[in-house]
Amino acid sequence: MSYVAPLKDMLFVMNELAGLNEVNALPGCEDATAETVEAILEEKARFTSEVIATLNWAGDQAPSYWKDGQVFTTKGFKEAFKMFGEAGWQGVQHPAEFGGQGLPKLLATPCIEMLHAANLSFALCPLLTDGAIEALLTAGSDADKATYLENLISGKWTGTMNLTEPQAGSDLAMVRTRAVPQDDGTYKVFGTKIFITYGEHDMAENIVHLVLARTPNAPEGVKGISLFIVPKFMVNADGSLGARNDAHCVSIEHKLGIKASPTCVLQFGDNGGAIGTLVGEENRGLEYMFIMMNAARFGVGMQGVAVAERAYQKAVQYAKDRVQSRDLAGSAGPVSIIHHPDVRRMLMSMRAQIEGSRALAYVAAAMSDKAHHHADAEVRKQNQAAYEFLVPIVKGWSTELSLDVTSTGVQVHGGMGFIEETGAAQHYRDAQILTIYEGTTAIQANDLVGRKTSRDGGAVAKQFIAQVRAVEAELSATGEANLKAIAAQLAIGAKAMEDVVEFVVANFKSDIKAVFSGSVPYLKLAGVVLGGWQMARAALIAQAKLQAGGGDASFNQAKVATARFFADHILSTAQGLRTSIVDGSAGVLALSEEQF
Amino acid sequence: MSYVAPLKDMLFVMNELAGLNEVNALPGCEDATAETVEAILEEKARFTSEVIATLNWAGDQAPSYWKDGQVFTTKGFKEAFKMFGEAGWQGVQHPAEFGGQGLPKLLATPCIEMLHAANLSFALCPLLTDGAIEALLTAGSDADKATYLENLISGKWTGTMNLTEPQAGSDLAMVRTRAVPQDDGTYKVFGTKIFITYGEHDMAENIVHLVLARTPNAPEGVKGISLFIVPKFMVNADGSLGARNDAHCVSIEHKLGIKASPTCVLQFGDNGGAIGTLVGEENRGLEYMFIMMNAARFGVGMQGVAVAERAYQKAVQYAKDRVQSRDLAGSAGPVSIIHHPDVRRMLMSMRAQIEGSRALAYVAAAMSDKAHHHADAEVRKQNQAAYEFLVPIVKGWSTELSLDVTSTGVQVHGGMGFIEETGAAQHYRDAQILTIYEGTTAIQANDLVGRKTSRDGGAVAKQFIAQVRAVEAELSATGEANLKAIAAQLAIGAKAMEDVVEFVVANFKSDIKAVFSGSVPYLKLAGVVLGGWQMARAALIAQAKLQAGGGDASFNQAKVATARFFADHILSTAQGLRTSIVDGSAGVLALSEEQF
Repeated sequence: MSYVAPLKDMLFVMNELAGLNEVNALPGCEDATAETVEAILEEKARFTSEVIATLNWAGDQAPSYWKDGQVFTTKGFKEAFKMFGEAGWQGVQHPAEFGGQGLPKLLATPCIEMLHAANLSFALCPLLTDGAIEALLTAGSDADKATYLENLISGKWTGTMNLTEPQAGSDLAMVRTRAVPQDDGTYKVFGTKIFITYGEHDMAENIVHLVLARTPNAPEGVKGISLFIVPKFMVNADGSLGARNDAHCVSIEHKLGIKASPTCVLQFGDNGGAIGTLVGEENRGLEYMFIMMNAARFGVGMQGVAVAERAYQKAVQYAKDRVQSRDLAGSAGPVSIIHHPDVRRMLMSMRAQIEGSRALAYVAAAMSDKAHHHADAEVRKQNQAAYEFLVPIVKGWSTELSLDVTSTGVQVHGGMGFIEETGAAQHYRDAQILTIYEGTTAIQANDLVGRKTSRDGGAVAKQFIAQVRAVEAELSATGEANLKAIAAQLAIGAKAMEDVVEFVVANFKSDIKAVFSGSVPYLKLAGVVLGGWQMARAALIAQAKLQAGGGDASFNQAKVATARFFADHILSTAQGLRTSIVDGSAGVLALSEEQF
Repeated sequence: MSYVAPLKDMLFVMNELAGLNEVNALPGCEDATAETVEAILEEKARFTSEVIATLNWAGDQAPSYWKDGQVFTTKGFKEAFKMFGEAGWQGVQHPAEFGGQGLPKLLATPCIEMLHAANLSFALCPLLTDGAIEALLTAGSDADKATYLENLISGKWTGTMNLTEPQAGSDLAMVRTRAVPQDDGTYKVFGTKIFITYGEHDMAENIVHLVLARTPNAPEGVKGISLFIVPKFMVNADGSLGARNDAHCVSIEHKLGIKASPTCVLQFGDNGGAIGTLVGEENRGLEYMFIMMNAARFGVGMQGVAVAERAYQKAVQYAKDRVQSRDLAGSAGPVSIIHHPDVRRMLMSMRAQIEGSRALAYVAAAMSDKAHHHADAEVRKQNQAAYEFLVPIVKGWSTELSLDVTSTGVQVHGGMGFIEETGAAQHYRDAQILTIYEGTTAIQANDLVGRKTSRDGGAVAKQFIAQVRAVEAELSATGEANLKAIAAQLAIGAKAMEDVVEFVVANFKSDIKAVFSGSVPYLKLAGVVLGGWQMARAALIAQAKLQAGGGDASFNQAKVATARFFADHILSTAQGLRTSIVDGSAGVLALSEEQF
């Protein structure tokens, strides 16, 4: 089996750290009982291992290809996507009203992790479709919802996000695609969009493009962007498919990784105009697109966790199988390389970063559930703010660490890792896009620094730090050696984050370039401190279970040891990051353009 | 131009840090005057930019291929290699006696850096040939030297290293290839070797394989390995080529990167036995091979610096060209992305790591020259010990950072970085092998911990730390803000390294697994502290030149700023690494195999 979902760790995180029982108690989340959750995860684990994971290498070797305007996906993808839709997996977190299962994000999150771990390229199609569903749910008219949602949620149709243009990447103010109003209330859309994931493919009957464009006389910049639905095939009043719309894929990219996922150049309106309908109000497109983006950003963060887990499983297997060199402590003959300390260090580094980033993401998902479902408006508001603080960290940190983890995965394989047939290199190649799309790490970091930290004077950040401090105190109070060692690093990390939040808040207005010089290090610091906080909580709980006796002692002992590793090897980078942020802008900003 | 050799920085490092004038004063190095060096470097810069760099992308797109036992290299490689040989570039550092130029390693090193930066795949063939030349110079008989050296040094023939077998990678004790003595004094060699770089190709008239094999009744393990010359074509007494030997390439690998460089499976003796001649004495093969390996390890370290430099140049160009988003400090319209603080941070991070690792490697090269040429035996001995201490660091640290630098290079390109046509991804894929071949980073780190640190009780390590401390004192004494900031980080780094050397020496015998758990972090710590030391020296010198006035003020100012960046962003990781090493083994070693 090339991928086995880490159900034990997923359930531990959901139950012990993210508070599944609290989520289950929320109005509207009553179906998400522990038993239901476990049953769903087990079924998803089976499906992803047996059906989806097996297509991963095939997709790398025989990627999607373009011919005469059509895109043909890797053999097996179409059938697998049909099974995916029919089993209801697209609809886990979407409203029952439109055919979904209406389950909490906390449950959807491990489901999504499994899908990505099994096959990043495949899972991108549902990820983008989720985004389209979210946007229509929030900003679409009743007619839009009636026309599109059921088929998107059932997996009969898929969705896309059309933002980027050749001159407009991170900077959407530069969008030039035009939407010209017609007498019948529709618009004709003209323009070129690039980097459109699953912009064209053969896995669904229709593709619902959500497209950013400007109406005539719209204001300059991001305030003049509107959002349009431009379906591949028009939809008749009775729901049947009508004429082919004037939106065509003219080429797909030849990429470093996620090769099975077609990355399309879409040409709108080359033959008279693509027919689009406005979503919500004119000039509010960016706001709506951010709904998709935020959902997608969290999803890409999960891709980071997922591809890291997949690489870890492969590396562990190789380290157990490959026999080379004697044990350092002395052995008669050569041993499997998992006995060698540095191989262990590499595996623990992978494992610790995966567990830390998974825990932080699931905890964030539970916050999102509370933000949506809690009976108390104040609790909803607090959780929304906390969730929004975590989204750029989940996206940025989980994906950055996936680069390290997948690279380490290659390294564990030695020379075999460099041979494509081994498969370790695919994860490394695939991961590299994660820190780029749906907003680069710098974009996430700027969001964290600006909207999420400076805007409220660091209030939410400080609430998190206070929780870190509380856990640190609990750890220190136990007297257990591992927990005390974790507490020591957590204290250093919390202090570093305090200093940095203070620095950001104090200098944001007066010296914005200095603050943004440290934005990515700040994001990484927040990741290691908050990931370390979750690992520390996990260690406390696991240690208590160990002391209580019974249960899965091996699992709990490993959890404590992994948290200890996280503290000494990952969280221990906090002080250095603090230096880079607080003292580091002089070096960042000193050179003139000519000096480069 | 896709690559322009950074001559200014190379010459600064050679003159100011590595002491070219001292090297030039050594017996036998009189030809390496400042003028000669500059002329040679300028010519090599021209050759690598115009002839070699232009073949880099072509090699990735149309790699070497195998057909019926023959390997055909990328179009243009054969002609370029002929020019390379005829211009004398293979012979820069080799003895004039056999047609080389007999110039110091300090001069050969930038020449080699340029070649690797221009084209890693191409440059591997000379790199392996250098190794074969070194081995024959040291261990070959006069007849061996007469038969092979001139043609290897002229580039007419090339060399290979045949160590690895399917079951024997890092662990050469497992080598099974057999060498059976014949009545005429030759041996018949039988076995399979894998991962043989340029084991077969069409760029040279003959290929000189140096092969590790066991004679009958040889001792078990590494003490029973001998080294053999197995030429592709036998060499007649008059030097002309004779019969085709029974050494054949049966396949080449499909790799993540360095695709133009054929990685061969060589089959020896399938048709009666490959004819080999013993090098030196029986059972001393590993010792001889280490001569090649050490030369090659330093060379691979330079590959790390080189590919990082290439990626940096590409990223700088893109950052200057790509216009996106307004300046944070306010601008009317969008600006080139080099104006954005995080893009600058990324570029500075690349630049600082390149300059630091280049400086350390060149300084090591000068030590090697003194170890070979100095009139005083004691000075030779000290320099040899210092050089040997640095070799695993140059190899391990420079290549590890090249993974970070090339990944950052992709990131600077945003979405375009993920598109293969852009070319940034090639450097990222190419770099990934560098931490693996010629001994993985763990192998380098074990060498550093064991032979280089523990064996002499940390004596050489402490001599380096004392030099770091001296520079720190000089910096502190200046009162200049940047230099003081650098001193502060250097002090923390020196202390961290002191603690770690003490930890290694104290625990090497009593708790070897704990020590080796931290071996790679120790290697990285040594890299950042010693690289930081060189950057600090550079800053002192550049600052003094600035204060003296005149000269290239822009260059000197950039040097100080880059050193400042190095201190706050790279050297600042030292304290965290110390924690990982001194406290981190508990987390590394806690899990049982089953718990993974």
